[in-house]
Amino acid sequence: MDYETPQFFRVMRYAREADRDVVDMVSGNPDWDPPSALREGLKAYADSPTEAFQYPPSVGLRDLREEIATRRGVATDQVLVTNGAGEANHLAMAAGLEAFSGTEVLLVDPVYPYYPGRASLLGADVSFVPTKVDGHLDADAVRECASAETAVIVVNTPNNPLGATYDETTMAALVEVAEAHDALLVSDEVYDHFDYAGRFSSALAIDSPNRVVTNSFSKSMAITGWRVGYAIFPDPGGTGTDAGDEAGADDGTAASGAESLFDRARTRHMLTNVTGSRPAQAAVLAALRETEPAYYERNRERLRERIDVFTTALDAAGAEFTRPDGGFYVMARFPDFAGSMENVERLVDEAGVAGMPGAAFGDSRADWLRFALVTPRVATAAERLADYFE
Amino acid sequence: MDYETPQFFRVMRYAREADRDVVDMVSGNPDWDPPSALREGLKAYADSPTEAFQYPPSVGLRDLREEIATRRGVATDQVLVTNGAGEANHLAMAAGLEAFSGTEVLLVDPVYPYYPGRASLLGADVSFVPTKVDGHLDADAVRECASAETAVIVVNTPNNPLGATYDETTMAALVEVAEAHDALLVSDEVYDHFDYAGRFSSALAIDSPNRVVTNSFSKSMAITGWRVGYAIFPDPGGTGTDAGDEAGADDGTAASGAESLFDRARTRHMLTNVTGSRPAQAAVLAALRETEPAYYERNRERLRERIDVFTTALDAAGAEFTRPDGGFYVMARFPDFAGSMENVERLVDEAGVAGMPGAAFGDSRADWLRFALVTPRVATAAERLADYFE
Repeated sequence: MDYETPQFFRVMRYAREADRDVVDMVSGNPDWDPPSALREGLKAYADSPTEAFQYPPSVGLRDLREEIATRRGVATDQVLVTNGAGEANHLAMAAGLEAFSGTEVLLVDPVYPYYPGRASLLGADVSFVPTKVDGHLDADAVRECASAETAVIVVNTPNNPLGATYDETTMAALVEVAEAHDALLVSDEVYDHFDYAGRFSSALAIDSPNRVVTNSFSKSMAITGWRVGYAIFPDPGGTGTDAGDEAGADDGTAASGAESLFDRARTRHMLTNVTGSRPAQAAVLAALRETEPAYYERNRERLRERIDVFTTALDAAGAEFTRPDGGFYVMARFPDFAGSMENVERLVDEAGVAGMPGAAFGDSRADWLRFALVTPRVATAAERLADYFE
Repeated sequence: MDYETPQFFRVMRYAREADRDVVDMVSGNPDWDPPSALREGLKAYADSPTEAFQYPPSVGLRDLREEIATRRGVATDQVLVTNGAGEANHLAMAAGLEAFSGTEVLLVDPVYPYYPGRASLLGADVSFVPTKVDGHLDADAVRECASAETAVIVVNTPNNPLGATYDETTMAALVEVAEAHDALLVSDEVYDHFDYAGRFSSALAIDSPNRVVTNSFSKSMAITGWRVGYAIFPDPGGTGTDAGDEAGADDGTAASGAESLFDRARTRHMLTNVTGSRPAQAAVLAALRETEPAYYERNRERLRERIDVFTTALDAAGAEFTRPDGGFYVMARFPDFAGSMENVERLVDEAGVAGMPGAAFGDSRADWLRFALVTPRVATAAERLADYFE
């Protein structure tokens, strides 16, 4: 797969420049409001004394790490606050490649294109495990593909682009495969608040030195541009240093004798980014503390309704698809209509709906299209598709 | 030099836990207020529609890039907005190591400890050029140390820790050395607003495909924790793609056929961080537009006064030092008082002043101490040092 090709930008530009109204189902940006406590938290932060504008600890604001740790049931020193889940995944993969044997990163096909890009940046070999026809991941397939060469296995649940959500048995099996091959399972769970089938099970539930969980507030708080994410590392069992909380100093130096996964990730984070952006961390902390579960439930319910509307239209259009268990996306295959860039552009021009070519996510879904449901115009898009393909 | 040792944290903790009042001259965090337009800009951003909370372009908000480009007299597509100057330096060094021949990063001794840390993270060999006794850098010394193995040369002007500011002739000579050895000069100019001698000359003044300038708003706007910096790459001469401005998409992929330094840095930035934090970028843009030169002049004047007070006390204490041309720091050597950690702790306990051991910046200044003047209590510290050493 050529993940280097900026197909997303190409589709977005094509849709923007089209000579007609187009429903954008390309990007994964939430279209609903963030928690009101987030806006208020940012305003309160803006009035802080100047000390609050200086370097936070490199590993993240202490209060934010504690809040995350409490919610996730882990120790604070397992939590590294990052520049979004993107950096969390990068750091976890890098730490895994350093700490575990082998040079291979095992990914799932179809894949979120950043993963192979990151693996290549880190000099790793990339292999892919195929998913089942229904979009789910068979842990036995992962077991078959894994070998002594495997250093890192990356999964995403709920999944982008498939909407599959892996259950507890699958997660346990994935951790077991990682353990069996001296590898690290990185479980990217950014869509965890969008679990419609009650099937989601975090890899955190399985205690293991071979798994890291990554997450962010980008989707759950509708702030993809704020870049506040985190990684939860295995319990270091008291081997960590306690310098982490002070690491935001101007002249910050790396951790000493870094050996744990956390310490490896912290060092790389410090040397590349120094620390994350403090206004965003401060506002997310306020929002975490003050936002009621009803906020998240409302957003989940909105997506659930959109999925109903959209999949009903896909049925009417004679498309093959899997109803997502979680996340923002639906992949669909229309009769005699390959998921090529040519057809994507045809759909923009002739139906007024912009999706993504399945090939952007790997060869296995080259006949498919991906639609993001983060637009208030899902019903319009659904009607247009049903009309177009009927 | 053992840059891995968290000496900064050790000193800060020692000072905090001391059984007496201590003036902290360790960290480089400004102690004055940010521009008022920055606070207002952040509040205005907090009330933005939800679209403004989603991914900015990976390379930074378009308006911010344009504002920086106009101020620096370069093309917008030369400007990459980064997570502080820290990331800008990381990206520039990585691009230089990829694009130019050799595996060596040439640094100046004494050195800002992050530089060798970053070079090692990137797998480079590190060599050091000694500075002159007065703290200045002799371009001939750099020429002597550079070789075919040199891929990147990193300088910092105005300098941390020395306060030296390199003049136009030196900067031109440094670019010429880089060109002669097929290497990249990375000029980190984060203290450019703190030029007391009128000597500062940006490397931007010399047009060359062999130089990158990095900077940030951390010091000039007193927001080290916000992480908004930038790198200015050589004019690609029309070879760049125009996908940069759209690169913040959820499913962002790397640039196609990346060859220019800008494209290399953008790809790494995208794969590690996706993009920088938007609230901070939005507020910095507002502050850039609305802050009068008087704000920067006031802060410069404050530092100038502190330097007067502090260097007068150093004279009284019989110390050797160089009056800084720029930046926040003074290095000093006291008679019969090595710049060891032991002596740093003694100074905390017996004089109530916390500085940094010179060894943290390299072997050449192991007898020296570094003092940061970003505290309102410079006069108190000066008195204490004069009393202690008199």
